[in-house]
Amino acid sequence: MISFENDYLEGAHEKVLQRLIETNMVQEAGYGADQFSQQAADKIREIIDCPHATVRFLVGGTQTNQVVISTVLEPYEAVISANTGHVAVHEGGAIEFSGHKVIELESNEGKITAESVKQYLETFNSDFKKEHMAFPGMVYISHPTEYGTLYSKSELQALSEVCRKHQIPLFMDGARLGYGVMSDATDVDITDIAKYCDIFYIGGTKVGALCGEAIVFTQYNEPKHFTTRIKQHGALLAKGRLVGIQFLELFTNNLYFDISRHAIHMANKMKKGFIDKGYRVYFDSPTNQQFFILSEEKIQQLQQKVKFAVWEKYDENHRVVRFATSWATTEENVNQLLELI
Amino acid sequence: MISFENDYLEGAHEKVLQRLIETNMVQEAGYGADQFSQQAADKIREIIDCPHATVRFLVGGTQTNQVVISTVLEPYEAVISANTGHVAVHEGGAIEFSGHKVIELESNEGKITAESVKQYLETFNSDFKKEHMAFPGMVYISHPTEYGTLYSKSELQALSEVCRKHQIPLFMDGARLGYGVMSDATDVDITDIAKYCDIFYIGGTKVGALCGEAIVFTQYNEPKHFTTRIKQHGALLAKGRLVGIQFLELFTNNLYFDISRHAIHMANKMKKGFIDKGYRVYFDSPTNQQFFILSEEKIQQLQQKVKFAVWEKYDENHRVVRFATSWATTEENVNQLLELI
Amino acid sequence: MISFENDYLEGAHEKVLQRLIETNMVQEAGYGADQFSQQAADKIREIIDCPHATVRFLVGGTQTNQVVISTVLEPYEAVISANTGHVAVHEGGAIEFSGHKVIELESNEGKITAESVKQYLETFNSDFKKEHMAFPGMVYISHPTEYGTLYSKSELQALSEVCRKHQIPLFMDGARLGYGVMSDATDVDITDIAKYCDIFYIGGTKVGALCGEAIVFTQYNEPKHFTTRIKQHGALLAKGRLVGIQFLELFTNNLYFDISRHAIHMANKMKKGFIDKGYRVYFDSPTNQQFFILSEEKIQQLQQKVKFAVWEKYDENHRVVRFATSWATTEENVNQLLELI
Amino acid sequence: MISFENDYLEGAHEKVLQRLIETNMVQEAGYGADQFSQQAADKIREIIDCPHATVRFLVGGTQTNQVVISTVLEPYEAVISANTGHVAVHEGGAIEFSGHKVIELESNEGKITAESVKQYLETFNSDFKKEHMAFPGMVYISHPTEYGTLYSKSELQALSEVCRKHQIPLFMDGARLGYGVMSDATDVDITDIAKYCDIFYIGGTKVGALCGEAIVFTQYNEPKHFTTRIKQHGALLAKGRLVGIQFLELFTNNLYFDISRHAIHMANKMKKGFIDKGYRVYFDSPTNQQFFILSEEKIQQLQQKVKFAVWEKYDENHRVVRFATSWATTEENVNQLLELI
Repeated sequence: MISFENDYLEGAHEKVLQRLIETNMVQEAGYGADQFSQQAADKIREIIDCPHATVRFLVGGTQTNQVVISTVLEPYEAVISANTGHVAVHEGGAIEFSGHKVIELESNEGKITAESVKQYLETFNSDFKKEHMAFPGMVYISHPTEYGTLYSKSELQALSEVCRKHQIPLFMDGARLGYGVMSDATDVDITDIAKYCDIFYIGGTKVGALCGEAIVFTQYNEPKHFTTRIKQHGALLAKGRLVGIQFLELFTNNLYFDISRHAIHMANKMKKGFIDKGYRVYFDSPTNQQFFILSEEKIQQLQQKVKFAVWEKYDENHRVVRFATSWATTEENVNQLLELI
Repeated sequence: MISFENDYLEGAHEKVLQRLIETNMVQEAGYGADQFSQQAADKIREIIDCPHATVRFLVGGTQTNQVVISTVLEPYEAVISANTGHVAVHEGGAIEFSGHKVIELESNEGKITAESVKQYLETFNSDFKKEHMAFPGMVYISHPTEYGTLYSKSELQALSEVCRKHQIPLFMDGARLGYGVMSDATDVDITDIAKYCDIFYIGGTKVGALCGEAIVFTQYNEPKHFTTRIKQHGALLAKGRLVGIQFLELFTNNLYFDISRHAIHMANKMKKGFIDKGYRVYFDSPTNQQFFILSEEKIQQLQQKVKFAVWEKYDENHRVVRFATSWATTEENVNQLLELI
Repeated sequence: MISFENDYLEGAHEKVLQRLIETNMVQEAGYGADQFSQQAADKIREIIDCPHATVRFLVGGTQTNQVVISTVLEPYEAVISANTGHVAVHEGGAIEFSGHKVIELESNEGKITAESVKQYLETFNSDFKKEHMAFPGMVYISHPTEYGTLYSKSELQALSEVCRKHQIPLFMDGARLGYGVMSDATDVDITDIAKYCDIFYIGGTKVGALCGEAIVFTQYNEPKHFTTRIKQHGALLAKGRLVGIQFLELFTNNLYFDISRHAIHMANKMKKGFIDKGYRVYFDSPTNQQFFILSEEKIQQLQQKVKFAVWEKYDENHRVVRFATSWATTEENVNQLLELI
Repeated sequence: MISFENDYLEGAHEKVLQRLIETNMVQEAGYGADQFSQQAADKIREIIDCPHATVRFLVGGTQTNQVVISTVLEPYEAVISANTGHVAVHEGGAIEFSGHKVIELESNEGKITAESVKQYLETFNSDFKKEHMAFPGMVYISHPTEYGTLYSKSELQALSEVCRKHQIPLFMDGARLGYGVMSDATDVDITDIAKYCDIFYIGGTKVGALCGEAIVFTQYNEPKHFTTRIKQHGALLAKGRLVGIQFLELFTNNLYFDISRHAIHMANKMKKGFIDKGYRVYFDSPTNQQFFILSEEKIQQLQQKVKFAVWEKYDENHRVVRFATSWATTEENVNQLLELI
């Protein structure tokens, strides 16, 4: 059965795998001190046009969010997030488990606004009981969001300005970063992200790698003794090369961007196909996650032939469903899907 | 200057102090094993009509919330609270600091409904990604709430039913419990609380004691090795007698209830006085905290003569203010206040 | 039955109680902002001869150790302690519960040496795997120790020098500080403690107060937003006055020192009495805790008439026992004890 | 330059890599629900002869220790370990970071004895202050130890008996398990480990995999909601297949054991070579880590040509050094090394 259930269904892009094979028997230092991780960091610094950035590699998304948030925040600080943000909903309480409150702001299609962040910060600062409250110490956004939507450059810039004015970092969860920057509908490229975010991560797991995320600190703001702190979180990979090699390949010859663009093409084709057949989109997502409104009957019928994620209820007879494409999606499978619907 | 700023302005009720003096040189075991703490627990069990309840004494409110919530919840569980709940707003993130998410439900005048809890639990249980979410493991309510409002018996019963059906405890923060059960407007007495809540605490700090809160476990549900866990939280008082003696006196000859009733009388008189002079109430609070809408000008004028808490903005020219009475409020001071306004 | 089981058997010194009574109905701000806490801090600063010190009041000893250690250490740091230290043994793992390792050094009669600390720090610094280890970030000592022993001024100075050279604070647990500085056998007074320690606390619970410990930061080193951090630990007392008033009285007219001296006199008399009757001391303690070696038979016989703490096994037929005096010990009781033995 | 610095210098065994390639484009469910992880678990259950065991896959060793220890222990419990144990020394305080004390017992060549564990537990149980202590809740051993040594079957059995008598689990860190069970000098095979340990993990990272460890719960003792708890630790791999596939291959046709035996052969050859040339061994290790005593001069000379780990000082002129072999060590490299020394 074909599947569009999520964007981590397969292993790695063949070139990534090839690089792992080629380098397999080279003896390298552990814990990220290998040459491949260093080279990958160099490539990333170059591509994001931020020569002084620090780049570190971890294994997965929730791990990255937890490590970054809990090491960057002071113990008395909280992170601001959309109430639909991954850290607020789908990380099993990992942020709170590390001791920090997630301050949830109302979101619209997965996004928060600079205005709402500003208002929260100003209200907090004027509160006579603020000593009895968790201090807002970071703003977390995901781009693309959990609903596939994107921040525009001006929205990102506005968020960045509010954060910098209040001297708290803006952290972008880029688990699907490639699918964001390669969207047809965006005016934000990866250099903008490096410019406006104080910390962000480039997702590998969902964009061509077996595993791995690359954290980028753009403001000379890597936490002190970060290696030890990663270790404390149980997140320090002995064979750091595993992630380093994959990112080295992903950022060689534009592979990361090319395979992301492919996912966007597949998503666009899928969306057009659904719309052409009269289906309604739930969010008009410009990225690799597409949300449609299907009747319960149609859902049950389709589930015989294809896998996809069944999201929340829409109305009495309909539900929101998600079909995800990725670097690995074949045009053949998309065609097959469009015939089925 | 007279003050209605909060309900912990003075020391202890004179009878409580007297009891401390009388017992001062009696040699007693530490850590809550003293005779006074045992006797106080007996009194409380009798008054709440729950002979099998376990009663433990801690020092303060945030401490009690943190110790109870973090020891009762499993590490993967979260507590449900009103978004205005003390644990959600004014404990410096103490619950999250202990590793647990506070799931915030929309509140109305400080309260949440059984219906909204039920809906949250059912939605959670039907979520196909629930393994990736913090599990709701307790419902926290305050009674009176942070806005002075009260749950009715039927509301409490409904909350209790939802919790028991879903096998999660209902925990009541009773920092101002006395002012709740002695309100003219309540149909909930302390035996109802013991009946419907699985855990609650009886506030001493704000009701006649120098310090101290009495936790009651009504369902054979005191956490295992609770003394060690209190110790771990740094919350085990060497001279446990200090709190035990105070509660023993508070629960002798109805002192706790009598002094609470006094605060209610003072609050009612104050409210009537404000209304008679044409002021608007913000919440029609039936307890010891009274919320009025005052103009900025009036606030500044009054602040020359009396202390009170200035809450949030109401409109361009007005703010919500809180005047609190307590066991210690004198009629003379209330009269003086009413002349000032 | 008379008791020498510990030094927290009674309530508070009568003058302390008197001060609580006199100030009882004064309306004061909460959370430590009251005038009494401010005055008490002033008195302490004066007596320790450290005008720039910051003084904060908490409720109990384990709480104070946990709050100080976990707020002063960076998250990747550990505290060095004697393996017999209170934080290492008798706090239910409260330090580890707050996320920090206790590095245990071999101790002699409850003490560690500057040399052993120096060696640990130098070995750590030269370890090629130190990034994989918890960083030593503080040295904790108790004075008097858990065995009643004391550091000499030169020992304290040496520890201070090692710590300052390595830029980690020296923290003294002074739960029984009064009984240390008033010992006949010490050359360390409270100004020496303020001079050599970067942080210390003055114990109230065991020295005349109902509860309360005064933390002193001597090096402009109070943790940022300390009030919020205390709150996070559930350790912020609403009626901060309760502890403030007690310390104000304890540090008025030398009360703290006078009552400590009394306990020392009682301990000396007790020790002489035991020795005169042929009993062996286990440690030759110069403070209020006295350790003797008693036969099992003698222990059982004495336990009919007097309470004391039975410590570890000494040999097949003997055990180490502890008799503690305090500010509250009467000469009559000591005489009675000496008749019994 | 050739290296014997550690046992994680290369990527994965070629057959493991081959399996990753072959399965790469198969679409599979995430988070460990893939067919490969299920099949690998089946293989492991069969090989360890424990049909009811639960098998879960994580990424790395410190992560596995942290997740297992902190989810199996109650919050008030501590883990007993050799003072040389990995969790006690080289995990950056990760266990304490998760809230639990590591109780360190004196070790001999990396091992602890059933007798010392028994004594600790009995002393604890008879301590009248045990409520004020962290409760021992698990025994952690590593096999092979950090010094390459092994427990004999009778030692393991004795430890198991003590643990079961006291109803606390015995947990074995098997980061190098293969090199233990394939040692010439052991009478412990993997079925013995499953029989005597309540929990253990089979190391992949150091034995042929790119990454990955397989946790085995042998006593129906997998923690409740373990997936959520893994998630909370940031340790849930989206593409769980990555580890599942590798373990599937490692446990197909005895690969895990064959490649482990190879490392042992290489280690034996190396040891014999050193001894033949007159070098002294520090520990007579029967596994893949070999410890020798080299003069400072010899160390400097060798470091020009070969990499190895320089351990602690032995005497004025000598140091302990470690040479590690692994599944990837070539006979050619060992020969080259023996020529160099």
